[in-house]
Amino acid sequence: MAPTRSEWRVGIAGLGTVGVGLLDLLAERPDFAPAGALTRVTGVCARSRTRPRTSDISNLPWFDDPVALARSLENDIFVELIGGSDGPAKAAVEAALGLGKPVVTANKALIAEHGGELARLAEERGAPLLFEAAVMGGTPAVKMLREAMVGDEVIGLVGILNGTCNYILTEMEASGRDFSEVLAEAQRLGFAEADPTMDVGGFDAAHKITILAALAFGCAPTYAAAQVEGVADVELMDIRLARDLGYRIKLVASAIRSSGGVSVRVHPALAPLDHPLARAGGILNALFIEGRRVGRIFIQGAGAGAGPTAAAVAADIADVMTGAVRPVFRAPAADLASFTPVDAAKTLGRAYLRLLVRDQPGVIAAVSETLAEAGVSIDSFLQKPVEGAGGVPIVITTHVAAEATFSEAARRMAKLPALIEPPRVIRIAPI
Amino acid sequence: MAPTRSEWRVGIAGLGTVGVGLLDLLAERPDFAPAGALTRVTGVCARSRTRPRTSDISNLPWFDDPVALARSLENDIFVELIGGSDGPAKAAVEAALGLGKPVVTANKALIAEHGGELARLAEERGAPLLFEAAVMGGTPAVKMLREAMVGDEVIGLVGILNGTCNYILTEMEASGRDFSEVLAEAQRLGFAEADPTMDVGGFDAAHKITILAALAFGCAPTYAAAQVEGVADVELMDIRLARDLGYRIKLVASAIRSSGGVSVRVHPALAPLDHPLARAGGILNALFIEGRRVGRIFIQGAGAGAGPTAAAVAADIADVMTGAVRPVFRAPAADLASFTPVDAAKTLGRAYLRLLVRDQPGVIAAVSETLAEAGVSIDSFLQKPVEGAGGVPIVITTHVAAEATFSEAARRMAKLPALIEPPRVIRIAPI
Repeated sequence: MAPTRSEWRVGIAGLGTVGVGLLDLLAERPDFAPAGALTRVTGVCARSRTRPRTSDISNLPWFDDPVALARSLENDIFVELIGGSDGPAKAAVEAALGLGKPVVTANKALIAEHGGELARLAEERGAPLLFEAAVMGGTPAVKMLREAMVGDEVIGLVGILNGTCNYILTEMEASGRDFSEVLAEAQRLGFAEADPTMDVGGFDAAHKITILAALAFGCAPTYAAAQVEGVADVELMDIRLARDLGYRIKLVASAIRSSGGVSVRVHPALAPLDHPLARAGGILNALFIEGRRVGRIFIQGAGAGAGPTAAAVAADIADVMTGAVRPVFRAPAADLASFTPVDAAKTLGRAYLRLLVRDQPGVIAAVSETLAEAGVSIDSFLQKPVEGAGGVPIVITTHVAAEATFSEAARRMAKLPALIEPPRVIRIAPI
Repeated sequence: MAPTRSEWRVGIAGLGTVGVGLLDLLAERPDFAPAGALTRVTGVCARSRTRPRTSDISNLPWFDDPVALARSLENDIFVELIGGSDGPAKAAVEAALGLGKPVVTANKALIAEHGGELARLAEERGAPLLFEAAVMGGTPAVKMLREAMVGDEVIGLVGILNGTCNYILTEMEASGRDFSEVLAEAQRLGFAEADPTMDVGGFDAAHKITILAALAFGCAPTYAAAQVEGVADVELMDIRLARDLGYRIKLVASAIRSSGGVSVRVHPALAPLDHPLARAGGILNALFIEGRRVGRIFIQGAGAGAGPTAAAVAADIADVMTGAVRPVFRAPAADLASFTPVDAAKTLGRAYLRLLVRDQPGVIAAVSETLAEAGVSIDSFLQKPVEGAGGVPIVITTHVAAEATFSEAARRMAKLPALIEPPRVIRIAPI
């Protein structure tokens, strides 16, 4: 039963920042695993062999093809850091698992989009498939949900899972600059990619919450069921008005189980200023896990970066060495069902509605009548001039109603003659 | 290699709130483990068979002697929920491990005081020894340090690990009542034991931080090296004055590694009001883990209670089922050294000094001269009347100095004729 191997040979495909971070870690501490077994890197593969890197790879066996590295008998563990939901990453992971070789990956897109089928392959061949580094970097959300929460039933997850968006929203508020300016700065600083779509579109966070939901609820990850809205439309005006009302706008990822199914969503949402999610600023990631027995557990940490992510990959390598046999998700892969999506229109919640109106008599009466007709009950109402807004903003926070009610209210209000632009609806976080 | 058992028979010694919570959990979800194996309780043992319990135990095989239950061939996993560092708990755990039987325990005193020798026995016999429930209830601090942080080097841990003390301090501030009143209420509400010494004396938190330090730094738990101070001397006046200065008094447990050794301490300390540790109120537990690579990870959750603690025990049972083979702490038990204690007098930090003086001319001059002579550099100085204090409080917060400097300053100030009582020194938390 004991894994008696004294040396584990590791093949690493993908030598970006995380891959190089892992090379550095394994070079510095080849004996990092608790049981004292050594690691040795016996093969690497990347798009370019000669690209400048902080780590010297000239003495490591080079593979041009990640699938060949995955199949090589010269390594016992295959580490996939290529990225992307399909293409070479998927082919290489399938090749390794097909041979019964343990796989460690940081690839959230791959697991969110193909986790169910990969788990089946892994369990058929008796090969661990581990992906701690795919979510929250070095903060072990995956291990918590996969292992520590199995004695409980998870009710819901609510968190901030994308450091780039969190950095942008934090900076917009702090500096009073708008989205595009801060994004450009984040790109210069390396906090955002040249093509920022995955991050600012909410897709990266959606991959991550999909994976966490699968672990929490014992389903197959069902990325297609996630409802995703990014931060590109968040306006500085709303950040300021929300703050006046005691809230901060965050890109919130949530997965809630109800009798009807599982609701997995990513969208901007208002969190009360003194709530830990509102207080997790900059590149931090944060997550609430609510269990029936354990109540609410909160975890927070750096969500990305070479150091944290490489440490998470290393922890998974150590996990492989323990010889633990467990399902990839929370139940054997053969038993995993897809999420049953919940009808978003029927989801209950509260909302922030912001209008930009011409300053003329009767506007407030017209707005409040329209809201009443749509069935929206008002919690707070704020009309406040904002410099350079090109009109007068009116902000309403609502009591709980179905989302369809807010859409209907927005649709009706959009027709009011005093409105300068369509109403903006932002959800208040379910926390 | 795969644990193919389809049923795991569990023996449970100790049927207090956690034991009964576990019986309920296993009765409701005998198939809770991810791999789908069933659990069946095949033996129980407690001080009293007939004591009223919410769970019916009449149909469960009864053992009078926990050692006999631990040795019984009718169970595959022995769960120890008796408590106490020695006596029957230790004897039973040794008996089970001696037979190579996996042990799951919630017993922090046992692990903190005898964890090194028990780990040796467990590893010699190839039996897992798991104790997630010993620290932070259902919040998986043990698993995080044992498994998720192995890719990193932990620099330090700082947290709130005793819910009873945290409840008392929170209530003192909220209600303006003093320690003894709030303690009495906590006892009535079941948040404090009839004999509260383990909790309010800081010993329970010291057991827990000792265990976490052993996991974090790869040492044998060395309870004797912990420096422990409880909350019984925390006065309402100091809670209020600290608040005026922007701090909250918490019972802070810390373990810091330095080149000289490991400093493990539990003592009241001031945390800035907006710091997550200051904001973790009531019965919450909270912990910062600082790693060289991952930076600061924060976790927070309910630190006790039947539900969370039973869920943690169940997670450990599921872990046994995976067949994972790993050291009990962070390195093989045979290699574990005790903590090298650090000389507290040389530990650097900041402090809050509070004097109670007679309102007479020259006091401030005398105090500040004495501080200067002792080598204490002042950060802030507050003289503020407090109703019913029986004198005028003077509060000083200092810049960083060695602890010996503060003791020396307190010793000198105690001699000032204007002082009504000896100076009170409370550390400012190293956060």
